[in-house]
Amino acid sequence: MPKRDLLLRAIHQNPIERFPVWLMRQAGRYMKEYRELREKEKDFLSLCKNVDLSVKISLLPLELLDVDAIIIFSDILVPLEGLGLTVRFVEGEGPSVEWDGKVGSLKKYDPESNSFVYQIIQRVIGEQQEVPVIGFAGAPFTLASYMIEGGASRDFLRTKLFMWEREYDFGRLMEILTDTIYDYLSAQIEAGCHVVQIFDSWAGALSRSDYEYHVYQYTDHLIGRMKEKYDIPVIYFFRNSSSFMDFALNLRADVLSLDWSVDISEVSLKTDKVLQGNLEPAVLYAEEETLKLKTLELLRSVPRKTGYIFNLGHGLAPDMDFNKVKLLVDTVKNYNIP
Amino acid sequence: MPKRDLLLRAIHQNPIERFPVWLMRQAGRYMKEYRELREKEKDFLSLCKNVDLSVKISLLPLELLDVDAIIIFSDILVPLEGLGLTVRFVEGEGPSVEWDGKVGSLKKYDPESNSFVYQIIQRVIGEQQEVPVIGFAGAPFTLASYMIEGGASRDFLRTKLFMWEREYDFGRLMEILTDTIYDYLSAQIEAGCHVVQIFDSWAGALSRSDYEYHVYQYTDHLIGRMKEKYDIPVIYFFRNSSSFMDFALNLRADVLSLDWSVDISEVSLKTDKVLQGNLEPAVLYAEEETLKLKTLELLRSVPRKTGYIFNLGHGLAPDMDFNKVKLLVDTVKNYNIP
Repeated sequence: MPKRDLLLRAIHQNPIERFPVWLMRQAGRYMKEYRELREKEKDFLSLCKNVDLSVKISLLPLELLDVDAIIIFSDILVPLEGLGLTVRFVEGEGPSVEWDGKVGSLKKYDPESNSFVYQIIQRVIGEQQEVPVIGFAGAPFTLASYMIEGGASRDFLRTKLFMWEREYDFGRLMEILTDTIYDYLSAQIEAGCHVVQIFDSWAGALSRSDYEYHVYQYTDHLIGRMKEKYDIPVIYFFRNSSSFMDFALNLRADVLSLDWSVDISEVSLKTDKVLQGNLEPAVLYAEEETLKLKTLELLRSVPRKTGYIFNLGHGLAPDMDFNKVKLLVDTVKNYNIP
Repeated sequence: MPKRDLLLRAIHQNPIERFPVWLMRQAGRYMKEYRELREKEKDFLSLCKNVDLSVKISLLPLELLDVDAIIIFSDILVPLEGLGLTVRFVEGEGPSVEWDGKVGSLKKYDPESNSFVYQIIQRVIGEQQEVPVIGFAGAPFTLASYMIEGGASRDFLRTKLFMWEREYDFGRLMEILTDTIYDYLSAQIEAGCHVVQIFDSWAGALSRSDYEYHVYQYTDHLIGRMKEKYDIPVIYFFRNSSSFMDFALNLRADVLSLDWSVDISEVSLKTDKVLQGNLEPAVLYAEEETLKLKTLELLRSVPRKTGYIFNLGHGLAPDMDFNKVKLLVDTVKNYNIP
């Protein structure tokens, strides 16, 4: 057990002296120290596979920001290589995934293909016993969208057409991804991480009926199976939180990580689940006084004494100012729960 | 009164024989006939000011699609010139608005500066008495965002920072825009249009607390003032409908035009207001069978015999196929309300 167990106490709704804080993409390009380590590998995927460097990067936010949790440095696309796909991160262009669109051509996922990830987890736990370590994976729909689009997308048009017009194949793909993510997260848990987060970054692009009919069952099955096997907290991150709240509340996740489309005081009335996030990342571009004010406004609107984890509604961006991120973390840490 | 008053009967919740249908951006680049007329003027803004051409363009969807309403051909940025701003539409780049950021430098809006718009309305009504004519304007926040960003935006970062850090100026700007839009829509109504639609395309980018504190009062005031003076239906179009539904329900608009983030059957349970829209525009890229299926799925989910107007959750796009748009309209027109 980590010495500073604030995050775990908040998740178990035990008394806490202040709200725990960590940030999505807390180890990233906005940090000079990250950029220096990044230079040591030719591309981003090689960096993810370099255990020494990934451990150092994972530890940066604890050293530089003194956050309450470490999320391991990796990328949600990492397990797709284990399905036989070519994954590339081209500088300035974002990720690309090469897939021929045939579900039958996917290799059976072997979790050992990502052994470097489990080594990173073990090494991060070995090198610090201060704070809990968070493992993570993409949710089935979000990974499917990268496979079908071939990379990032704004409208997810190809994914939607695949889902509507190749319904049987889409279902098979979602099943394969659900099993893959289950195996991948299981191996992360067995490597010792204390919490896992599932990133459903893009399901928010769907209509409610498409989510209900084509997506919900797989996410639900994944999380249910994890919770049956492992006694470890599961965080579910989803965008467009307002639209999909009722589905998310039915998932067996312990923690719901919210974007800024919902009012946390209203969500708190509907659920006893632990909540995370909700601050609009854009406040990090504001002046210091505004940043503090908006952060305190959010903290004051949390009608709980525990069961809340501070985070943003989305990840940190490369052009953010480190000093403002530090100010944000300190503002949360200095806030007294009334 | 137009001969085919289906739209007006649906709005007044009188009996209808089928759901009325019109489409946002129904006269646009996806139509060959539009592209031919577009060629006759050097730029988009000149096209909007050319009454003859704008009348012809406005009439195209009635001629080619036989829709149940004509929305006049124009753009929401048109009245900004009346505030002394330079508005440009650069082909392939989207709109640009030049403003020095000083609220004091804005000219007092004279509705006569947009007399061509009222002429278009009068001429469209003169040339056909078949269907109702819809006038429109952008909502205060949406126009403010174009002024502050200088054009379109994905994150509305400048707008948010202006709103948070120059709160007094932002409020003054919203007041000026509210008065401007009121005068502009009043002149459209006096020119004879039967319905007006207010496009709040971008308020959905805000957090709920920002919308509540910085935006809601102006939209509410605008619509309230319109409804006090004119006995004419007001449609309020808003994106991110799920998140802002409770605010929209409180507005005095007669019709709420929804995107696809909500389930219309659920919204229908919450309100007696007339509803419009809700179909995801992406279905227009699907095969014909899928397009029909998704359209019928939506129509069947409307738990009403009147009080619904078919539309998409957003406007038509230039790369859509005219034949599919026609199929969409015909599918709606052939649907029998059970």
